[in-house]
Amino acid sequence: MPLPQVAACCDIGGTKALVGFVDRQGNILAQERYLSPSGREPVELASEVATHLHELAARSRIGWQQVAGLGYSTAGMMDVESGIIFASPNQGTWRDVPFKNLLQEELGLPAWIEMDANAAALGEAWKGAGIGTKYFVYIIIGTGIGSGILVSGKVWRGWRGTAGEIGHTTIEPDGPLCSCGNFGCLEALAAGPAIALRAQGAIQQGRKTIITELSSGHEITAEMVFKAARLKDLVALEILSKTVEYLGIGLANVITLLSPQVIALGGGVAVGGADLLLEPLRQSVARRCGSWVDLQSTRIVLSELGEYAGLLGAARLVWGV
Amino acid sequence: MPLPQVAACCDIGGTKALVGFVDRQGNILAQERYLSPSGREPVELASEVATHLHELAARSRIGWQQVAGLGYSTAGMMDVESGIIFASPNQGTWRDVPFKNLLQEELGLPAWIEMDANAAALGEAWKGAGIGTKYFVYIIIGTGIGSGILVSGKVWRGWRGTAGEIGHTTIEPDGPLCSCGNFGCLEALAAGPAIALRAQGAIQQGRKTIITELSSGHEITAEMVFKAARLKDLVALEILSKTVEYLGIGLANVITLLSPQVIALGGGVAVGGADLLLEPLRQSVARRCGSWVDLQSTRIVLSELGEYAGLLGAARLVWGV
Repeated sequence: MPLPQVAACCDIGGTKALVGFVDRQGNILAQERYLSPSGREPVELASEVATHLHELAARSRIGWQQVAGLGYSTAGMMDVESGIIFASPNQGTWRDVPFKNLLQEELGLPAWIEMDANAAALGEAWKGAGIGTKYFVYIIIGTGIGSGILVSGKVWRGWRGTAGEIGHTTIEPDGPLCSCGNFGCLEALAAGPAIALRAQGAIQQGRKTIITELSSGHEITAEMVFKAARLKDLVALEILSKTVEYLGIGLANVITLLSPQVIALGGGVAVGGADLLLEPLRQSVARRCGSWVDLQSTRIVLSELGEYAGLLGAARLVWGV
Repeated sequence: MPLPQVAACCDIGGTKALVGFVDRQGNILAQERYLSPSGREPVELASEVATHLHELAARSRIGWQQVAGLGYSTAGMMDVESGIIFASPNQGTWRDVPFKNLLQEELGLPAWIEMDANAAALGEAWKGAGIGTKYFVYIIIGTGIGSGILVSGKVWRGWRGTAGEIGHTTIEPDGPLCSCGNFGCLEALAAGPAIALRAQGAIQQGRKTIITELSSGHEITAEMVFKAARLKDLVALEILSKTVEYLGIGLANVITLLSPQVIALGGGVAVGGADLLLEPLRQSVARRCGSWVDLQSTRIVLSELGEYAGLLGAARLVWGV
């Protein structure tokens, strides 16, 4: 009897990479996390991925002849059909890199590439919070904010393949400048760095907060603000209340436009601050939805797959969506 | 040779109704506009529609045996599958009316119902500004603001069938109260009544504007503000500049989330003020889109079918989408 086929998959972040093998049923047969610094050359990165996958296969007694293909998830602007990555925030100098072809040559396997938020959405729709939904949105809230929008299991890509950029919807017309050039984007108001920045601002204004001690001279992070909020620090609670208000507008706008059945939240801020953010966020969304929106209609939940959402979504590409 | 089949169709607004017959190719063979006051009973309205269609058929030498079915477009919350209208802004007391069945019984024909913005989107995608697009959004800007979102020619309905309510996305968190109960909705900032209200406010503040003379004691309308702006009235120009800013955020948010190929604008405000609004709106959208959005990517155009978009979309329902 021939050995069952497996999908090789990887999810490449700004500093960390996750590679693995997943079967047709969505079981992770083997996985490995390793540090992968940003700013690599395409060939170098493809070769690194290949090395890690080969070693992991050998260690896990997975024969290379079992591997049906590679699914690759990463941040960036890309055309999934041609497999060209136009630009990637983690690989600053990449321009129009035919990365799917590079991976195929390096691994001798068919390959598929996908934007990280879309891959995570596909993973959650397959094995997590989006199972059985026709209209599903996965939102990643971390260093940045992005989303993957699915209808009947297919990614809504849009005309230019750039759909889902909820982080760059305008929430506060006169809000802070965003890295994209616009003012008042959700990402500039509610992603991890925005939370940290508001804490920094409060300290500079001379406000008393235990965030000062928690940071003890180091750069302030959203995680420190969460810690302080759990200790009932007023400044931290204020910052999170504002964050939840902005996120509530962003999510309510998505619900108003798209009426998804489930919105699943992933990413460091959403997961790390879930105990502080999730329930207030649901209330904030309810306040911002019109009275005609059935407030029970869209469930707002945490990602069920956590950091494995993207890996499973990448595997899904190999098995066909 | 049997006579060719035709679709009966109607588009029922708050005060005006449009009924007609459309062939498979999308030619309007006959049409009639008549006043249809709001606040009717369901049976009364269904019977009125039937009467007008029978008379129009007779006048136009269309045999009733040629009529393949009826497509019905109107504002409101509805379930298109079961054909139940939950609520309708023009028929205030309607609750859970099985209107599709009523129409079928009244006319002896299969019937389909659709929300007006979705019907207009289907019409434009069939015979107007959305031909050949995979991702298409039609936005109606008039007394209210709503939209129909299509992917591959199918309406994005969402989980509760309420998708497309761009008019109730939050644009200005501390903006004016909207009829839906939220603050700062696009509709409360940029629909016809909002434009008129800002003119009224300016006059009450004692600002000099020819809108005062144009209205000569009557209720101010958006149309009067357009007239004044064409005469270079400063107050009117300011009001429209603000309106365009809000609309620009609303449209940019749609582009950022959905990346449609074309956004077509219909409705009294968009069409009546096109000479003043369209080009500034394109610029406002460009300012609000992130630098990574290809600004040439989404074309923002006027509806090509004007007041016939909904009628043709209703006919499309009969021929199958």
